[in-house]
Amino acid sequence: MMTSSSSDSSLRLIIFILFITFTAITTTTTTVNSLPIPFPKTPQESLLQKHTNKPLKPSSTLPFTTHYFPQLLDHFTFTPNSSKIFYQKYLLNSTFFSSSSSSPIFVYTGNEGDIEWFASNSGFIFDIAPKFNALLLFIEHRFYGDSLPFGNDSYSSAETLGYLTSTQALADYAQLIRSLKHNLSAEASPVIVFGGSYGGMLAAWFRLKYPHVAIGALASSAPILQFDDIVPWSSFYDGVSQDYKDESMNCFEVIKGSWDELIALSLKKNGLQKIGKIFRSCKKLQSVYSVRNWLWTAFVYTAMVDYPTPANFMADLPAYPVKEMCRAIDGFPARGSKLPKVFAAASIYYNYSGTEKCFDFESGSDPHGLHGWDWQACTEMVMPMTCSNESMFPPSGYDYKDASAQCEFKYGVQSRPHWITTEYGGYRIGEVLKRFGSNIIFSNGLRDPWSRGGVIKNISPSIVALVTKKGAHHLDFRSATKNDPKWLIEQRRKEVEIIRGWIRQYHEDMKD
Amino acid sequence: MMTSSSSDSSLRLIIFILFITFTAITTTTTTVNSLPIPFPKTPQESLLQKHTNKPLKPSSTLPFTTHYFPQLLDHFTFTPNSSKIFYQKYLLNSTFFSSSSSSPIFVYTGNEGDIEWFASNSGFIFDIAPKFNALLLFIEHRFYGDSLPFGNDSYSSAETLGYLTSTQALADYAQLIRSLKHNLSAEASPVIVFGGSYGGMLAAWFRLKYPHVAIGALASSAPILQFDDIVPWSSFYDGVSQDYKDESMNCFEVIKGSWDELIALSLKKNGLQKIGKIFRSCKKLQSVYSVRNWLWTAFVYTAMVDYPTPANFMADLPAYPVKEMCRAIDGFPARGSKLPKVFAAASIYYNYSGTEKCFDFESGSDPHGLHGWDWQACTEMVMPMTCSNESMFPPSGYDYKDASAQCEFKYGVQSRPHWITTEYGGYRIGEVLKRFGSNIIFSNGLRDPWSRGGVIKNISPSIVALVTKKGAHHLDFRSATKNDPKWLIEQRRKEVEIIRGWIRQYHEDMKD
Repeated sequence: MMTSSSSDSSLRLIIFILFITFTAITTTTTTVNSLPIPFPKTPQESLLQKHTNKPLKPSSTLPFTTHYFPQLLDHFTFTPNSSKIFYQKYLLNSTFFSSSSSSPIFVYTGNEGDIEWFASNSGFIFDIAPKFNALLLFIEHRFYGDSLPFGNDSYSSAETLGYLTSTQALADYAQLIRSLKHNLSAEASPVIVFGGSYGGMLAAWFRLKYPHVAIGALASSAPILQFDDIVPWSSFYDGVSQDYKDESMNCFEVIKGSWDELIALSLKKNGLQKIGKIFRSCKKLQSVYSVRNWLWTAFVYTAMVDYPTPANFMADLPAYPVKEMCRAIDGFPARGSKLPKVFAAASIYYNYSGTEKCFDFESGSDPHGLHGWDWQACTEMVMPMTCSNESMFPPSGYDYKDASAQCEFKYGVQSRPHWITTEYGGYRIGEVLKRFGSNIIFSNGLRDPWSRGGVIKNISPSIVALVTKKGAHHLDFRSATKNDPKWLIEQRRKEVEIIRGWIRQYHEDMKD
Repeated sequence: MMTSSSSDSSLRLIIFILFITFTAITTTTTTVNSLPIPFPKTPQESLLQKHTNKPLKPSSTLPFTTHYFPQLLDHFTFTPNSSKIFYQKYLLNSTFFSSSSSSPIFVYTGNEGDIEWFASNSGFIFDIAPKFNALLLFIEHRFYGDSLPFGNDSYSSAETLGYLTSTQALADYAQLIRSLKHNLSAEASPVIVFGGSYGGMLAAWFRLKYPHVAIGALASSAPILQFDDIVPWSSFYDGVSQDYKDESMNCFEVIKGSWDELIALSLKKNGLQKIGKIFRSCKKLQSVYSVRNWLWTAFVYTAMVDYPTPANFMADLPAYPVKEMCRAIDGFPARGSKLPKVFAAASIYYNYSGTEKCFDFESGSDPHGLHGWDWQACTEMVMPMTCSNESMFPPSGYDYKDASAQCEFKYGVQSRPHWITTEYGGYRIGEVLKRFGSNIIFSNGLRDPWSRGGVIKNISPSIVALVTKKGAHHLDFRSATKNDPKWLIEQRRKEVEIIRGWIRQYHEDMKD
């Protein structure tokens, strides 16, 4: 994946890393009914398998030109290493733009993956660009895609990976944007930053830290409060669980009960073999945990992408896929084993087209591809997560020391679990930003479990939350479709209206 | 100076480094009447001489307890070196404080010197602390005073000095403040940051970058616009010159003419000897430039500290010392050599008490003491300065390449002359901050040439400029005296009133 433009599967996979990592961290201290049953450390494997099976190609006809910017390795020191230059990839579309009229520049602050992937999944920005005559600029995040400061050695150790941090990424964006505006003689063009998920955090933080570079930010599904103990540690999995509970109590209870049944069966004679049969394993199973992770992944990601229209963002899924999963579960007789029920539900996620005859739960993974976000989660992006007794997942705790020790073991690096809130804040964000800052939209869909770590209340007249009850993970960033529900059309309309207001005010202020 | 708590002179000297460096940089490309006459590279030497002769001791009875905070070397990477811990000094006074009542914490964001020096020259903060029941916290800047990340090796090369940057310093402050509030159970106490000169820049930037840590900033004489080409490069020396012109046109003309006369005399037979006699040199002069720098320093620093009351901040000076200097010059007959006149004027600065019988222009300097700010000016704090034909100084230009080449030669480091404006902004600051940020006071005195690089217009209802026509370099931060003019009393009163308003609003917001 480090040279992942050649690997289609990585394009789809990489977006998952953010979420998977939390699962991985959570699971290290998982206990089920007091049995110390550690999750395997690489639940990603089942996912990779999934995506190796069915690669989704990002459009090779993306309407962009590709460029590389000579970027500084370390913006915040002047040690000899700091001055090393690497080439940061960015994509440009200037079809609608005219710098002479000071029309705006829409910048996507790339997150943990190939920038083409984000470009091809942010159709909203393309949809609205003509209305604004906007220049489109998608910047790849350092250490992802082709933007590798040390080439193939980028992931070799903390000596190199150490430069993979959010603060450096934000400074990269500032440098690149300033340089590009200068080169295009577009200094008078206002910049709006856009981002989804981790990219949304970056967009919001960029507006807060670099207000002189960007006049506003649209941060979609950005869980900037998912750090320290700002929100309850159980909130994410409680959110996932609520999605299923909202569909049907039976659905929730079946999933909740399935974990124990799965483990119990695995301990019986020929248990693994029976499980393999129920779950249509292509090969003989080595461990029950691969199946457990396979299920876990399906339930979590389907909650995230519980979109109101068919979509193929993380998987090829029907509209409202959680409802479909629960329909599958509820279609079974009330009694009987829960395992065929959860298999049927998970099959919606893994096999909606019905073309897969069996599943490979334990195939190898790309060791490179997992490191980027995993490293970030081990260093600064520490988001403690637990599963409460009320969730539909096996209860699990979180311990800073355990998590930190694991990271130390893996990378020889010490976590800084409180750094993000020191650098970017988060506690009492309403009070802090009520009278500080401006021009940020936090958009969230409440079906997305990440919304529980997002800003879902207006903070000030110009730092606002656009929340949809039925929306999911950065749904608003997806291309408009003819089947979009009214509330989604309305959310996007408001976003356009607010951004238009920022730009109008900018031009008025500049006249003074 | 690296262990400078033991060296009194360094305490006074170090504050000068900021200003001296610019002189040094400016002078490297100086030409006088097209004659390429480079200034010596260490004009500091004459100053050091001055202060070695007459050390001013900071009060050893400062009402503080001294502490050390285990600070992270590099906040923005996770390379193996980044996790090194050093001990950062800070001073505390809790006489007036009660954490239970959530009274405020006043933090001085230390600049380029021993923290005791700033504490002993910021009497204003002590004067107002009882009114607020404030905790006082003075934090030493990394790489100064006793806060040396690599002990005596801190200044040995770019490998170590590379970590001396403003961004790291700001993150230090955030970390330390957060930790201290936690340890004191004072999380509910609002923090106000104070700083003067470079410390004032840090205070303003801290409020902009860490609004979740500090609710407001009083930035006194902070030339945050003295970067790139935000203000004209000639503004600083034009400002100095204007101070003298304001006193008398003759005074200005005499000083302006003295440089050529000095150089011309030095080229004559026994010229240096004659100069030595006029300037009462204790020893035989080796170079005319030591005298030139001696004069230069006197005129520049006297303009900066042109205080309305007697003060001994940079030298033991009478009230309105520029007026005194011009009075000395104007007291001479109109005709005749300018050199005795400028000597008499400079003697106000160097020898107001009249105790010095001769001056040592060419004594050695402390090679360590000069590096801190010099390094910063070579790396990120690049402030281009020139002397225009209209100034009273020999015309000189500035060239990025020359300046950069010098720094490369000295430290093996590459300047990043546009980094400060990328990281902190500055261009069109009025438009940028009109609708972003809040609670910053920029205080300036127009007699201070640094005010030309400062914010001297209100930006928004809560980002305000408090400007006094007759004030000088962070005059407001000095202890109140019984002879303070009304306008100074009024400036300080407004500062207190505004800060009181911030705190009141903070407590109201927290009630919500």
